[in-house]
Amino acid sequence: MFPILLEFIRLKHPFHYLRRMKALVLHTLHQDLDFTDIPTPVPRAGEVLVRLRAAALNRRDWWITQGQYSKIQLPVILGSDGVGEYRGKAVLINPALDWGSDPRAQGKEFRVLGLPDDGTFAEFIRIPRANLAPKPEHLNWEQAAALPLAGLTAYRTLFSRCRLQAGEQVLITGVGGGVALMAMQFALAAGAKVWVSSGDPLKLEKAVALGAQGGANYREADWDKSLKAESGGFDVVIDSAGGDGFAPLLNLCKPGARIGVYGGSLGKINGLSPQILFWKQISILGSTMGTPAEFRRMLAFVTRHRIVPVVDSVFALADGNAALARIAGGEQLGKIVLQI
Amino acid sequence: MFPILLEFIRLKHPFHYLRRMKALVLHTLHQDLDFTDIPTPVPRAGEVLVRLRAAALNRRDWWITQGQYSKIQLPVILGSDGVGEYRGKAVLINPALDWGSDPRAQGKEFRVLGLPDDGTFAEFIRIPRANLAPKPEHLNWEQAAALPLAGLTAYRTLFSRCRLQAGEQVLITGVGGGVALMAMQFALAAGAKVWVSSGDPLKLEKAVALGAQGGANYREADWDKSLKAESGGFDVVIDSAGGDGFAPLLNLCKPGARIGVYGGSLGKINGLSPQILFWKQISILGSTMGTPAEFRRMLAFVTRHRIVPVVDSVFALADGNAALARIAGGEQLGKIVLQI
Repeated sequence: MFPILLEFIRLKHPFHYLRRMKALVLHTLHQDLDFTDIPTPVPRAGEVLVRLRAAALNRRDWWITQGQYSKIQLPVILGSDGVGEYRGKAVLINPALDWGSDPRAQGKEFRVLGLPDDGTFAEFIRIPRANLAPKPEHLNWEQAAALPLAGLTAYRTLFSRCRLQAGEQVLITGVGGGVALMAMQFALAAGAKVWVSSGDPLKLEKAVALGAQGGANYREADWDKSLKAESGGFDVVIDSAGGDGFAPLLNLCKPGARIGVYGGSLGKINGLSPQILFWKQISILGSTMGTPAEFRRMLAFVTRHRIVPVVDSVFALADGNAALARIAGGEQLGKIVLQI
Repeated sequence: MFPILLEFIRLKHPFHYLRRMKALVLHTLHQDLDFTDIPTPVPRAGEVLVRLRAAALNRRDWWITQGQYSKIQLPVILGSDGVGEYRGKAVLINPALDWGSDPRAQGKEFRVLGLPDDGTFAEFIRIPRANLAPKPEHLNWEQAAALPLAGLTAYRTLFSRCRLQAGEQVLITGVGGGVALMAMQFALAAGAKVWVSSGDPLKLEKAVALGAQGGANYREADWDKSLKAESGGFDVVIDSAGGDGFAPLLNLCKPGARIGVYGGSLGKINGLSPQILFWKQISILGSTMGTPAEFRRMLAFVTRHRIVPVVDSVFALADGNAALARIAGGEQLGKIVLQI
């Protein structure tokens, strides 16, 4: 009874509306985020106020600042990934809002936290209580902040969509990105053999140090043929690039392979052979975010296997623009985190 | 005991090797099939000799004559579809040889009957006993001959791969072809609402007469936008064309849609948007032929729903070249059958 009463007083007290917080606000496209003081948000029905301790960046945040997203509404506080405290407990935020009733696809009300809803690059956030989960205890704030969006995306793509089995061979393209690296860690934990590709030899080395069987540099001639010879081909391929590098992935597939697609940073796919597609019985499976049940299963999987997300770098909230510049440059390996 | 003895005498009797039969033999690419007398084949271990009563053509037969197939070995008797008599019983031939142990994809030993193994355009065929099934009783010889390859392909694509459910909306592109028309009949029998596309208004009319909700002529401007407005979008799309008409199909998909691809007559797919693919959680599923279990399930489905394959035209075996010319022209609606 006592905590409920306190909550009531906190939320309903008129002085609440006078409370202010630090936040990174996007006012104008193509300009820096504004590190500023704004009113602390007021939770609505079904929502709670979380005191954030760390947030993490996703490419999505950068693209929004560049106007590369539909239905941008300004001003907005960016940020999909966050961990913090609610009633003295460490909580992780599920950034998938209002998925809907169909596990196959999100409904019309679905949003990713951080646009249009204000996100995690702030001291406080109002968030549906249903989107909170306990923070895995083996992770510190920064590691936990790195998990939600990338973990959910990787989990749904690998397991719900591609139905990865232990012992299968997996290729993860562009292994620098947060989801790609998380997918690699998840696939390894699930007992798969994982190969990676990147244009950066350093990233390939690091991926091998983390457990990958091998890596291929897609800037080298015939990298795909060498990789096929070395690996024998793949049961599952995870890609977020698309573009002209996608069609050759079909040659790397074993019969019955599944290609999970969760992004398309290099644009449209050309030269895709329907003959290889049907003769090898390949499945190309689009995937984005995931259901509340998938979020819970992902957290259970991470906890059971004591997976620690790879943190590339940590910035103070006040240095959010430097963090955005780092994700824009594409040099990172793993997640870029903001301490709050 | 007595039939086994008879079989032994028939197979082992030296005069058997002197028996001859009529067959359509492909000796040389880009030339007519040769309607000629050749020795009746001699079954090997596990095989039986079937007296054929009807065969049906597939585009594959035409493509082989044009050299558009890998590993062509000549001379060969073409033909994947056949029905006939074995020990006084009416039997249907499963044209999928040695699928292998993995239901997800055919193994390395897999062949489609009619290359390299001699096919059904002949009076007799030797065929593994395991590839025989009872002819559905509601079908005559010509209708039954129209069923095996197209039925198996349509069944696996629609049900095993795309997991079509009753009440879903289906688009079948290029409805003139044998598999497309069969897929339409199967989807209707399964309780789906079916739309079709074609470049030929007559085929659209006939498809509607057979139960389709509506048809779109893809030679008309904005046919896809009109079709989306009319239908509300599709849960399942079945395509065998690929080419530049494939990418716009993604716009016609509902969230969670599955696109089954069993052919690629218009060549490579260009301009495919990974963003639409992942945001709508679309699955693009290559499919070809099917397992022995799928063949049995297809026959049970056809029998239960008393589905009668659409026969476009019937030719005598001696007129096989005219039949090939008809499939090459693409004017047919349904299967082209040879009476034997």
